[in-house]
Amino acid sequence: MIEALRGKRVLITQAADFMGPALCEVLAEQGAEIVASHAPLVDPDAARAVVAQAGPIDVLVANLALPAPSTPALAVDEAEWAQVFDSLVHPLPRLVRAAVPGMVSRGGGKVLVMGSASALRGMKRASTYSAARGAQLAYVQAVGVELAPLKVQVNAIAQNFVDNPTYFPPEVQAHPRFQERLAREVPLGRLVAAREDALFAAYLCSDAAACFVGQVFPVSGGWVAR
Amino acid sequence: MIEALRGKRVLITQAADFMGPALCEVLAEQGAEIVASHAPLVDPDAARAVVAQAGPIDVLVANLALPAPSTPALAVDEAEWAQVFDSLVHPLPRLVRAAVPGMVSRGGGKVLVMGSASALRGMKRASTYSAARGAQLAYVQAVGVELAPLKVQVNAIAQNFVDNPTYFPPEVQAHPRFQERLAREVPLGRLVAAREDALFAAYLCSDAAACFVGQVFPVSGGWVAR
Amino acid sequence: MIEALRGKRVLITQAADFMGPALCEVLAEQGAEIVASHAPLVDPDAARAVVAQAGPIDVLVANLALPAPSTPALAVDEAEWAQVFDSLVHPLPRLVRAAVPGMVSRGGGKVLVMGSASALRGMKRASTYSAARGAQLAYVQAVGVELAPLKVQVNAIAQNFVDNPTYFPPEVQAHPRFQERLAREVPLGRLVAAREDALFAAYLCSDAAACFVGQVFPVSGGWVAR
Amino acid sequence: MIEALRGKRVLITQAADFMGPALCEVLAEQGAEIVASHAPLVDPDAARAVVAQAGPIDVLVANLALPAPSTPALAVDEAEWAQVFDSLVHPLPRLVRAAVPGMVSRGGGKVLVMGSASALRGMKRASTYSAARGAQLAYVQAVGVELAPLKVQVNAIAQNFVDNPTYFPPEVQAHPRFQERLAREVPLGRLVAAREDALFAAYLCSDAAACFVGQVFPVSGGWVAR
Repeated sequence: MIEALRGKRVLITQAADFMGPALCEVLAEQGAEIVASHAPLVDPDAARAVVAQAGPIDVLVANLALPAPSTPALAVDEAEWAQVFDSLVHPLPRLVRAAVPGMVSRGGGKVLVMGSASALRGMKRASTYSAARGAQLAYVQAVGVELAPLKVQVNAIAQNFVDNPTYFPPEVQAHPRFQERLAREVPLGRLVAAREDALFAAYLCSDAAACFVGQVFPVSGGWVAR
Repeated sequence: MIEALRGKRVLITQAADFMGPALCEVLAEQGAEIVASHAPLVDPDAARAVVAQAGPIDVLVANLALPAPSTPALAVDEAEWAQVFDSLVHPLPRLVRAAVPGMVSRGGGKVLVMGSASALRGMKRASTYSAARGAQLAYVQAVGVELAPLKVQVNAIAQNFVDNPTYFPPEVQAHPRFQERLAREVPLGRLVAAREDALFAAYLCSDAAACFVGQVFPVSGGWVAR
Repeated sequence: MIEALRGKRVLITQAADFMGPALCEVLAEQGAEIVASHAPLVDPDAARAVVAQAGPIDVLVANLALPAPSTPALAVDEAEWAQVFDSLVHPLPRLVRAAVPGMVSRGGGKVLVMGSASALRGMKRASTYSAARGAQLAYVQAVGVELAPLKVQVNAIAQNFVDNPTYFPPEVQAHPRFQERLAREVPLGRLVAAREDALFAAYLCSDAAACFVGQVFPVSGGWVAR
Repeated sequence: MIEALRGKRVLITQAADFMGPALCEVLAEQGAEIVASHAPLVDPDAARAVVAQAGPIDVLVANLALPAPSTPALAVDEAEWAQVFDSLVHPLPRLVRAAVPGMVSRGGGKVLVMGSASALRGMKRASTYSAARGAQLAYVQAVGVELAPLKVQVNAIAQNFVDNPTYFPPEVQAHPRFQERLAREVPLGRLVAAREDALFAAYLCSDAAACFVGQVFPVSGGWVAR
């Protein structure tokens, strides 16, 4: 699989968070030139600056994340809601507007959103987070259909139960109840490895995946099937 | 069908917009006592005030709407995005937080969100709107699962191609190209009547529908099947 | 809801099985004239005979069922597979071919298939049954789109965790492990009542539901959301 | 991508039909040892014989196909229904039963079903075919969940609008109305290339994809998104 991304410049946002570390490693292994951004994206001007600084890119990996609040729905406050949408939702169209025109002028490109299966299946105490992730996935579906004629493919991974430091830190994984939950709820019977998720992301970033348009791919060990 | 909502007090938000008029008429016919709110909900304090003024309610119909922008994805600006999320997304958790505790204290209740199928299937020039509607649906799925044990059912209709003055005003319907589009894209071959949609909403607001939990029901003349 | 089905002749197949008893009771309450068929449908000529004997009908409720085998996938034999497809799948197109032409000649009608959510979400030791139920749902989607212009609406309920004597007999429900499973897997926290399911079926058989086309409605207490 | 399938023996059924030729070529390029079966699979004993003859395999690609009938739903006859189910549906569990025990004894394996998106979205004059493909997909979801603990991953591609000689022969593609239909219905604006589909299949057959369980992947140029 060494050559699949050779010659591709790939911007990965929040490169230290969520799937960032695994994405940087795996996409580089496959020959991509990685532009790893560590800038926070909450500020309305940040996305444009990140893309401008990155220079010409072939692929944008919108890896947006923050620790998911587990507030009961009736106790969510304005601050939580605003922070989650400021972090996960509002930066996405800014990144797309900043990155895609250059791709179009260079003949095409790809956007891959690292999203969440929490938008596909309801979970308790995850209302804010699920809503924000739902905005991402519906955005991907709409923009994917619209940008396809411009040779820009926009797709998303909707993941859950993937090993990553933001959502499943070691202390969570060490908990026996977490292991029981995995056995009970995840048909795969284990967390998806970060590397497995990143390999799939790499595939979706490669030329081989130019046929996918506005599609949402669950990666959740069978927790959602479609 | 006259008695299905007898004894139910139902708050309908934005009662003059989107499905509001049809909902007020049909739910009243079925015996509901309608609290028709015409207050704008963008202000962060508005939702609480609307619910407080309504007094005790059995059902909240979150009918949130604004004319959908048809901006190409790459031309969307911050103002459009903010306005759409301010109108469609952020009021929803505020309404739920304001309305549900009273329902719980009275033994149960229902929330029905009048959402959009644009969150289920990508459409061009609808990125902002689709994203916002996607946030609503994912919120419903999560909150629905969480509130079910409290005997509060939260569900959504995801509609498209339903006759209503906000999205399909007469001048749009009069256009021959719109009629061609209907014939081509909507298996039903016509707009769903506002009354058909409202009758289904009435069903979901009735005691008969206490078995539905965090569910999204497409009403789109077959434009999406699931 | 007493009048919703007045004037409708409704054929319910396998009326003593699965949802048959609840459907007969609830649809009759709503004014339908019920033609309750108890004929087995495995024989290739049976469907035509049942429909011929029923006389003119407005609605066909295809309530096909047999006790679901729980054979591990690798131990399923030819006999099980054939029996399940003979019972659940092959009679469906025969019923549709027998019943729909009369509906068309009388100006329209409805077909409602009582299907299963096991076709929407994978379950262990249910491969044969799930496959058969999957054939039903895909058939409904295709035929629904095709027959809509003829004013015949074809839709399906995809149920699971609905109280019925065929799949959840009292001895199963009495088992503490079954109650634990309900609490763990079904967000509703209980079986959907047979009557709730039948009321929803009644709605889908009524004129109010003429806007639904080839649609699959999960009724599973939140076990599947869409 | 040259090494992804090195050391894997892959049985591809109906290797001259549907995606067979592209699969044989692409999987071989990636290092797989291909066992290309050309045996018809309708006979109940055929699947077992094909698997026995193949010897030990790591991956079974169930590539089942026949020219899709385009009979109106009300004109489908018993012979069409039986032939389609005999070709697409009944061989699948036979292949699984024949192939999987050996995989389990060797520590794991994969089954990939080349299915159809016609089971996910209704199409006119495709009722028999859609039903059969729906049986396949629901079978994959159920068996996938059941076999995951045995380290056998069972997944499916649900394709439509993929270039292949069985469903889109040159004379169909040459038709101007077909090109109009592509432009109108397929967001990608073209057929998915056979090679693109086969590359994705190759990915799903590789060790990298061991995290997918009973999952259905649409490959349809955006015709279905999920």
